[in-house]
Amino acid sequence: MLRLLTAGESHGKCLIGILEGLPGSIAIDIGFINLQLHRRQLGYGRGGRMQIEQDQIEILSGVRQGLSLGSPISFAIQNKDWDHWQIPMSVAPAPEGSNMRSVSRPRPGHADLAGALKFQTHDVRNVLERASARETAVRVAAGAFCRILLSHFGVRIGSHVVAIGKENIAGEFESLSIERILALDPDSPVRCIDPNAEKRMIALIDEAHDAGDTVGGVVEVVASPVLPGLGSHIQWDRRLDGQIAQAMISIPSAKAVEIGYGAEGAKSLGSAVHDQIFYDSLTKRFYRKTNRAGGVEGGISNGSDIRVRIHFKPIPTLRKPLNSVNVHSKEAFEAIVERGDTCAVPAAGVIAEAMLGFVLANAFLEKFGGDSIKEVEGNYQNYIRLLDEY
Amino acid sequence: MLRLLTAGESHGKCLIGILEGLPGSIAIDIGFINLQLHRRQLGYGRGGRMQIEQDQIEILSGVRQGLSLGSPISFAIQNKDWDHWQIPMSVAPAPEGSNMRSVSRPRPGHADLAGALKFQTHDVRNVLERASARETAVRVAAGAFCRILLSHFGVRIGSHVVAIGKENIAGEFESLSIERILALDPDSPVRCIDPNAEKRMIALIDEAHDAGDTVGGVVEVVASPVLPGLGSHIQWDRRLDGQIAQAMISIPSAKAVEIGYGAEGAKSLGSAVHDQIFYDSLTKRFYRKTNRAGGVEGGISNGSDIRVRIHFKPIPTLRKPLNSVNVHSKEAFEAIVERGDTCAVPAAGVIAEAMLGFVLANAFLEKFGGDSIKEVEGNYQNYIRLLDEY
Amino acid sequence: MLRLLTAGESHGKCLIGILEGLPGSIAIDIGFINLQLHRRQLGYGRGGRMQIEQDQIEILSGVRQGLSLGSPISFAIQNKDWDHWQIPMSVAPAPEGSNMRSVSRPRPGHADLAGALKFQTHDVRNVLERASARETAVRVAAGAFCRILLSHFGVRIGSHVVAIGKENIAGEFESLSIERILALDPDSPVRCIDPNAEKRMIALIDEAHDAGDTVGGVVEVVASPVLPGLGSHIQWDRRLDGQIAQAMISIPSAKAVEIGYGAEGAKSLGSAVHDQIFYDSLTKRFYRKTNRAGGVEGGISNGSDIRVRIHFKPIPTLRKPLNSVNVHSKEAFEAIVERGDTCAVPAAGVIAEAMLGFVLANAFLEKFGGDSIKEVEGNYQNYIRLLDEY
Amino acid sequence: MLRLLTAGESHGKCLIGILEGLPGSIAIDIGFINLQLHRRQLGYGRGGRMQIEQDQIEILSGVRQGLSLGSPISFAIQNKDWDHWQIPMSVAPAPEGSNMRSVSRPRPGHADLAGALKFQTHDVRNVLERASARETAVRVAAGAFCRILLSHFGVRIGSHVVAIGKENIAGEFESLSIERILALDPDSPVRCIDPNAEKRMIALIDEAHDAGDTVGGVVEVVASPVLPGLGSHIQWDRRLDGQIAQAMISIPSAKAVEIGYGAEGAKSLGSAVHDQIFYDSLTKRFYRKTNRAGGVEGGISNGSDIRVRIHFKPIPTLRKPLNSVNVHSKEAFEAIVERGDTCAVPAAGVIAEAMLGFVLANAFLEKFGGDSIKEVEGNYQNYIRLLDEY
Repeated sequence: MLRLLTAGESHGKCLIGILEGLPGSIAIDIGFINLQLHRRQLGYGRGGRMQIEQDQIEILSGVRQGLSLGSPISFAIQNKDWDHWQIPMSVAPAPEGSNMRSVSRPRPGHADLAGALKFQTHDVRNVLERASARETAVRVAAGAFCRILLSHFGVRIGSHVVAIGKENIAGEFESLSIERILALDPDSPVRCIDPNAEKRMIALIDEAHDAGDTVGGVVEVVASPVLPGLGSHIQWDRRLDGQIAQAMISIPSAKAVEIGYGAEGAKSLGSAVHDQIFYDSLTKRFYRKTNRAGGVEGGISNGSDIRVRIHFKPIPTLRKPLNSVNVHSKEAFEAIVERGDTCAVPAAGVIAEAMLGFVLANAFLEKFGGDSIKEVEGNYQNYIRLLDEY
Repeated sequence: MLRLLTAGESHGKCLIGILEGLPGSIAIDIGFINLQLHRRQLGYGRGGRMQIEQDQIEILSGVRQGLSLGSPISFAIQNKDWDHWQIPMSVAPAPEGSNMRSVSRPRPGHADLAGALKFQTHDVRNVLERASARETAVRVAAGAFCRILLSHFGVRIGSHVVAIGKENIAGEFESLSIERILALDPDSPVRCIDPNAEKRMIALIDEAHDAGDTVGGVVEVVASPVLPGLGSHIQWDRRLDGQIAQAMISIPSAKAVEIGYGAEGAKSLGSAVHDQIFYDSLTKRFYRKTNRAGGVEGGISNGSDIRVRIHFKPIPTLRKPLNSVNVHSKEAFEAIVERGDTCAVPAAGVIAEAMLGFVLANAFLEKFGGDSIKEVEGNYQNYIRLLDEY
Repeated sequence: MLRLLTAGESHGKCLIGILEGLPGSIAIDIGFINLQLHRRQLGYGRGGRMQIEQDQIEILSGVRQGLSLGSPISFAIQNKDWDHWQIPMSVAPAPEGSNMRSVSRPRPGHADLAGALKFQTHDVRNVLERASARETAVRVAAGAFCRILLSHFGVRIGSHVVAIGKENIAGEFESLSIERILALDPDSPVRCIDPNAEKRMIALIDEAHDAGDTVGGVVEVVASPVLPGLGSHIQWDRRLDGQIAQAMISIPSAKAVEIGYGAEGAKSLGSAVHDQIFYDSLTKRFYRKTNRAGGVEGGISNGSDIRVRIHFKPIPTLRKPLNSVNVHSKEAFEAIVERGDTCAVPAAGVIAEAMLGFVLANAFLEKFGGDSIKEVEGNYQNYIRLLDEY
Repeated sequence: MLRLLTAGESHGKCLIGILEGLPGSIAIDIGFINLQLHRRQLGYGRGGRMQIEQDQIEILSGVRQGLSLGSPISFAIQNKDWDHWQIPMSVAPAPEGSNMRSVSRPRPGHADLAGALKFQTHDVRNVLERASARETAVRVAAGAFCRILLSHFGVRIGSHVVAIGKENIAGEFESLSIERILALDPDSPVRCIDPNAEKRMIALIDEAHDAGDTVGGVVEVVASPVLPGLGSHIQWDRRLDGQIAQAMISIPSAKAVEIGYGAEGAKSLGSAVHDQIFYDSLTKRFYRKTNRAGGVEGGISNGSDIRVRIHFKPIPTLRKPLNSVNVHSKEAFEAIVERGDTCAVPAAGVIAEAMLGFVLANAFLEKFGGDSIKEVEGNYQNYIRLLDEY
């Protein structure tokens, strides 16, 4: 069982993560982790802060001489801008008269108001600092560790942007193989596989930006290959697709998730939705020619790629203000602007990769157990043999 | 904290559920629970078995003299058809030569093959019996207990069918109030609020039925009113929307879930997606004129109705067969037909209500604690006072 | 991961258990389970009810044709005396004027008063019915399933009574091998390995009985052999000894638990407490000549037998009354007598075996994963190979 | 629900903790937390390292301007000796030829060998660094936050040393009130309330030290006052005493735990073990004149003080070597000495206080819910009212 707790406020000194349960003796490629943190900061439509940050992981425990120990992996991601925030975000009370950068104006679309009521605070900063999507940097790092584990079993995870606002990729770019997705130009500004669509997406982001508005979009995340048998039908909360759905909707701004054909499948006839079963006597494996199920049937991975689409609303931070109400005075005002991103969808794909990595690594460890990577690999091979002999 | 474990095979002697963590001294209306079980069995497009069953709950523990004890509530739902299944589903080995009703032919779209590989069985019945949607009867009963708890705080939960296949309700029927949803004619064959759409839906189901095919659809489930402050932004797995998403995707055939505007919101501009904040000085409450967020911002309920849409694929049991492969001989065949439903979407809405009830009741108990309903009510009132004074 | 929920009131219709997470294809010996239920009912010093009961398990799901399915195992243990309790324990409100057998007189030493205050009830029966040790019948049955799993890896679990009140077994009977423990005469009235001590124990029970008093005692439970590597030092709540301690203290009347030398070790010098390490080049295994650690070092099983002692207070149900206070009138009275046992220690050992079985089976599945017994066995062999090659 | 994960190796850069679930707006007294860290480092019989360390907490998140935010509290405790360990404990591979301070000689009584086999490593340092009792510094800090929460409800936690080796406090010092325990001279070298016993204990430690040996002992930890109703009898793993037992046995070297009279109670007659119930009509509270139950009946706090005794074996690090086997060569050797403590029992009491704080704070939040301290306090008062009116 893996456990992941994240901690840290957006403008606090640092973010902290503890990932617990990873087996020992796994070679940890810090470059890979930092690459994922870097990828999270890219994407057309980001405002100024992203450039400043250049997140880097500092591993504080759980790794020694390049190898995981099996003990909890803890790590920090420093806030490069901490100097400017030391006083308002001070752990100890700041000197009287200091500028606390208090916020009394909750922004629609954020946790601001709901959180201020829940925690009974009139300084909305006490909520927004933690609710900020900056927290996802920890998830990306934690997910990178999980992906390193999964790479021992050949599992690769990739994502691409399927839509920005109303601009979609062309149908010919649907159902992309993991190879195509991973071959996506890392400098692609929107992380989109379809050059024509990408141009339209960029134009849309520019248009929104100029209007002081924001845009959302859709990301597809794919894991491949994934052997059959992860997750379980035996209890509602053991179903792999349910766990994936929770992980995805837990990403800030995510408002919908689809497994495989998803909403499209609900519109289709049954005869056109299910993936017929075939058998390859050479490899001794069952296989499908289609993957409308998105790799999960009955809550269990079925051997096809895991394919998930996540729909992100436009980030609620607007330069075009919205009506809101001051939590102190209860007077109406036009909602403040905290940051300047127009579109965060490309980054959201990187976060979705991380969360899928976490869920799958957990499902792997639940099925294969093991405390050292050698042991996990042996158990994996044992199951492969059972599949061979089935 | 609530815990729910369900048990039971589709053709086993009975289904069993344990719901643990409900406070004591709650009046348990068994009629209400059986009504929910009954509603789960209705719906245009069901085959023969539903009529036979007429599920009834038998409470085995946790309720005494009509009141919850605070101890685990366990209950059974008998299989009315058990006589015909005693031998193939016998706990003890049946006499040699008995007809085990073994299944060697996995059906595409079910857990059959993935489960058979996972559990290394060549009798697919060992998987399909548990993976059957019949298990959801337990969830509906457990959810009914949760809804009885929620009713103490005025929370009502309803659902309606938004689409069957490509047939949708008209736009004027969107964003329905809970009152309109609960006023839905219980005899509405598709549980659809829009009479014109319902006719088209019925026609579509008939058409699919005649072609030996099946259809899916979309359900909206709404909880109202829900006070602000349930769930939390502080950790990825405490977010209310993520928990809802897991609960919904855990329903058999659910392949997509949307919170509020969901996928629609991802297509919109930010200025059109967020719910502006207003204040009513009479009731001393913040409010929204719109509810595109579906009642959750930053993982926390925001005081608006919880609105969720779930997309169900057509049930994979087909009378029009699909290609598959015998798990013994590895020979191709055309997949078997286990049951005869054409459409299960109306029932799925009832299950979604139950799962939403479970998630919300759990969030209530996490926020308000309490061991007796009187204590929970007092804590609730304490929070209402804090909201009043905020 | 195993999950175990128990349900049921002492005089309710039945007890219910759900054990979830056991792998598939395990042959389930119902006779073994019933034997454990039977053993729980034996023991010198029991009152009348035990004879009536003759508990039998009825498996309701999760087992088919004698083999576990991998799906949740649910089962019932009927209350043979239900006829006499149908009205006072009725789920639905009983007719007015019925004898509810309400209890307003909390018994010291029971959950009665603390539970009545917690759940805010004035009928103490609402608490005592669930707090009754009868609930442990479910644990014994669930533990028996776990022990069947463990038997695939040669692990045997046994217990014996070490002390009744002040009467102890002789030192020569300490550190008994599992073989000696399992060879204990099943008809031994106190389940004591030392015939002389047993006589003194019986005399003590008789004496207490005649005085209307009760006696407690100490049980040792042993699991053997247990391979090294279960549990973990990496996090406080993953330590095997901590999990064992929780499981043991959760048994009604258990007030102290010792791992290995336990309290004795705290009195000794360090040089006399630790188990020196040796190596057998033939079997390629490290071994110890002593087992003061009780088989756990640093929260991890070390390859020696797991040895645990549990101290049970005398059962608080007294025929010799204690002062208490009526929860309605607040008037003092002498506490009621619910049952007539003088000593329940022999039975407590059987419960301790079950709880140890549950904890160890869970630790096995965490380390070895696997969904079918064949897969678990293969993973186990994989680890044995790693130990061979270490 | 509180969650606590600790991370960090003994000689790593720092220890990290995340405590998640604490309500918002609690004034955090860092001095109090550092005082607890300081107390953990005191005690007669410690070797050299303790003096060097002088642990200080650095809060990294979850606290702002002196108040808890409700978001996860993360913190670091630096390793003051990191300079000397940077190379052997480096996260990245150290330059070839560096001294890795590898350990191939497992020490009896530690996790060393069991952990090395479990994680399949031949450098025992990979295990011992995490298994070191240094990890408990994080628990002490986390427990201090919990105790700050509990202090809002008047709950105080204290501990004292009851025995070192065979030297016990006199009977007149048993059943001490929390006031007496908290009045213990902080400079008491053994943290013992009985000056005569303390002298004997010091002499015993000196004697063991001179012989190159070590001694263990017994600690009592008490929480007072604790209102009735924490924990629950309804499920085995909700029982408060079981949770306390797990928490205590999870402390390194803890080998036995007793609730209240514990082992003594098992030797007594029932009529002498249970705490008779009385009622005070002035305060409208039930009360006991004795507290043999240690404050828990039926798994529920009963309103008396929580009293727990924990037995610690002598620390296994010996200056007097024990036989062991090299994990590489399999050759016998005499076990290495890692550190020089003779006795760690006084410090263990501080850790036990922390763990009891954690368990009780969690039980409080489970019963009272709440997201801000104001809300928790209101819910608490609501329950107090119910107790008043009972």
